[in-house]
Amino acid sequence: MASNCPAEVGMPLEAVLTPCLLVDLDALERNMDRMAVFARENQIRLRPHAKTHKCPAIALQQIARGAVGICCQKVSEAEAMVEGGVTDIMVSNQVVDPRMIERLARLARAARVAVCVDDAANIDVIAAATKAQDAVLDVLVEIDVGAGRCGVAPGRPAVELARRISASPALRFAGLQAYNGRTQHRRDHAERQALVDTAVAMTRQTMDLLESEGLQCPIIAGAGTGSYALDAASGLYNELQCGSYVFMDADYNSLRDHDGQPRQDFSQSLFLYTTVMSKTRPTHAVCDAGLKVQSVDSGLPVVHGRDDVQYIEANDEHGLLADPHNLLRLGERLRLVPGHCDPTVNLHDWLVGIRGGRVECIWPVGARGMSL
Amino acid sequence: MASNCPAEVGMPLEAVLTPCLLVDLDALERNMDRMAVFARENQIRLRPHAKTHKCPAIALQQIARGAVGICCQKVSEAEAMVEGGVTDIMVSNQVVDPRMIERLARLARAARVAVCVDDAANIDVIAAATKAQDAVLDVLVEIDVGAGRCGVAPGRPAVELARRISASPALRFAGLQAYNGRTQHRRDHAERQALVDTAVAMTRQTMDLLESEGLQCPIIAGAGTGSYALDAASGLYNELQCGSYVFMDADYNSLRDHDGQPRQDFSQSLFLYTTVMSKTRPTHAVCDAGLKVQSVDSGLPVVHGRDDVQYIEANDEHGLLADPHNLLRLGERLRLVPGHCDPTVNLHDWLVGIRGGRVECIWPVGARGMSL
Repeated sequence: MASNCPAEVGMPLEAVLTPCLLVDLDALERNMDRMAVFARENQIRLRPHAKTHKCPAIALQQIARGAVGICCQKVSEAEAMVEGGVTDIMVSNQVVDPRMIERLARLARAARVAVCVDDAANIDVIAAATKAQDAVLDVLVEIDVGAGRCGVAPGRPAVELARRISASPALRFAGLQAYNGRTQHRRDHAERQALVDTAVAMTRQTMDLLESEGLQCPIIAGAGTGSYALDAASGLYNELQCGSYVFMDADYNSLRDHDGQPRQDFSQSLFLYTTVMSKTRPTHAVCDAGLKVQSVDSGLPVVHGRDDVQYIEANDEHGLLADPHNLLRLGERLRLVPGHCDPTVNLHDWLVGIRGGRVECIWPVGARGMSL
Repeated sequence: MASNCPAEVGMPLEAVLTPCLLVDLDALERNMDRMAVFARENQIRLRPHAKTHKCPAIALQQIARGAVGICCQKVSEAEAMVEGGVTDIMVSNQVVDPRMIERLARLARAARVAVCVDDAANIDVIAAATKAQDAVLDVLVEIDVGAGRCGVAPGRPAVELARRISASPALRFAGLQAYNGRTQHRRDHAERQALVDTAVAMTRQTMDLLESEGLQCPIIAGAGTGSYALDAASGLYNELQCGSYVFMDADYNSLRDHDGQPRQDFSQSLFLYTTVMSKTRPTHAVCDAGLKVQSVDSGLPVVHGRDDVQYIEANDEHGLLADPHNLLRLGERLRLVPGHCDPTVNLHDWLVGIRGGRVECIWPVGARGMSL
């Protein structure tokens, strides 16, 4: 009886229940096409990050457009993607719990699986689990190229880990994970370029050192929606892990190009659909999209296509709207552009695909809440 | 295959997978007992808000301790609670979509259901749907007592809505909803008292006006974990809607009592259990609890029982910890006190109940994601 499914296939947009996530399918497909063409033209592999959409249906569309596979951030997320039909996954993250390492190794019997490491003892546990499962696992060494998060220091510490991986028969040393999340959200193009230059220099030095010791790097992985063009232009990275480009969000929409103008490469395809649920004051209204259907960590949402009203406060189940000209009416629908797409999608069980004003599909967010 | 269930009943705490939500059952029960005793001693009805826990198992325990029923914020949330065995629910919010109003009216055939209104046309839709379902619905007029969110102005506008409710045979005018969310989170006791005084004056004036016109108010509802004792002391409110007291969070823990000291009434029972997943730098560590397992809208989490380390940044799947004395080790477990309990719980499918260092129960968060 209790259901949170907001729509049925074929229904007009106006009939969709709120709050819910809409996906403009034309915009989604344009974004996927554009990144696929970029990768092809730059002769670079694309392995989009599924942590953004957590939706096997979208992952399969990315792969159909030429992506070599997907990235996941968690083992349970990867399991959900394999169940959804994906056969090539890189877990671009560390896995440290022995039970989750065992699940990762088991998954490597059903799909091609890679994982990242930044610790010697962790490599030993992964090697033992992989051997016990009679599986083969690709392992990348994550290096800290400026994010100050996970990853060993570039250079010698990375070489030592690579050697340890190579020494294990169950593991294949697959290269370097060199992602800097901080680069992605810098608005200024020159700042992003400077951070990419630093990361590239660190990564190149590490790769050269590895090769001088006979350790080849089939994969140099990194890049996100903020930096992918700069990463590709470096000539060093050969695998792009962008995720947010499929949906975009208010934060990514604020990035500037080298000429100081807003970037134009991807369009907003993800919207939080909401209804005005209370209108008792002339200057304000209340909508039904609050903290339980969006993450406000990167800022409040932007009301799409309206500069006459503004979303000014998020409560658990309510959004407060400034309506200075008293334009909004009870029951009126608005589209919000979420501040941050990834954690917003993770709050929803469904993505309502819209084309031509009608619901074309309703995709389950299969890896929603898969945080183990 | 893909599963995000982090535990099995009987397992030691150390074996629970992370990230996940732990509930200290002793603390939870103390909190529930304490609020139940408070309500009994103050001869006031307790109708705890289930939007905090979204968990039928906890709702039933609250009712077993004397609560008259529960509050919900959304119709689908209420449906999940009725499925879980709850038979008396107030939706302390507006419901404006005709399909959701129909579901609300249908629910009123399976349980005693109340709802709040702040619009005349909305009352007519609710009346028609309730009649069509051959159901009976209690309807409260929500008045804006200072929150500046939903609710009509106190006084005459509220009386007009009450009259309209009374005029419908399918509806029962049940009283006033007079909740001010802004009061709950003021740290200073005197500021909370002043806001309660304002709300009480507005509510009393409205109630007197209603009664002078022959409209009795069986229910004067409001109060939250921040203000409940002050609301009860007013002698006006007769139904308390506190929710967060069962779990508490870093924000509520920062409230001060009238003597300026931290309030002592409830203890932290909810913890975000996390593991150090990367430790490559002497001054920092990375844990596996990021934005997808907690809401940081009210601030970052506090590391429980440790003042030697600090949670300083939340990324999607990572938490950055300052570890100035280089104490943390890879694989080490920490308990985090979430900044804001309600939207954090809504990110999880499971609550792992802990007692004496072992998993005693694993409760599904049955209304997780029920936002319609």
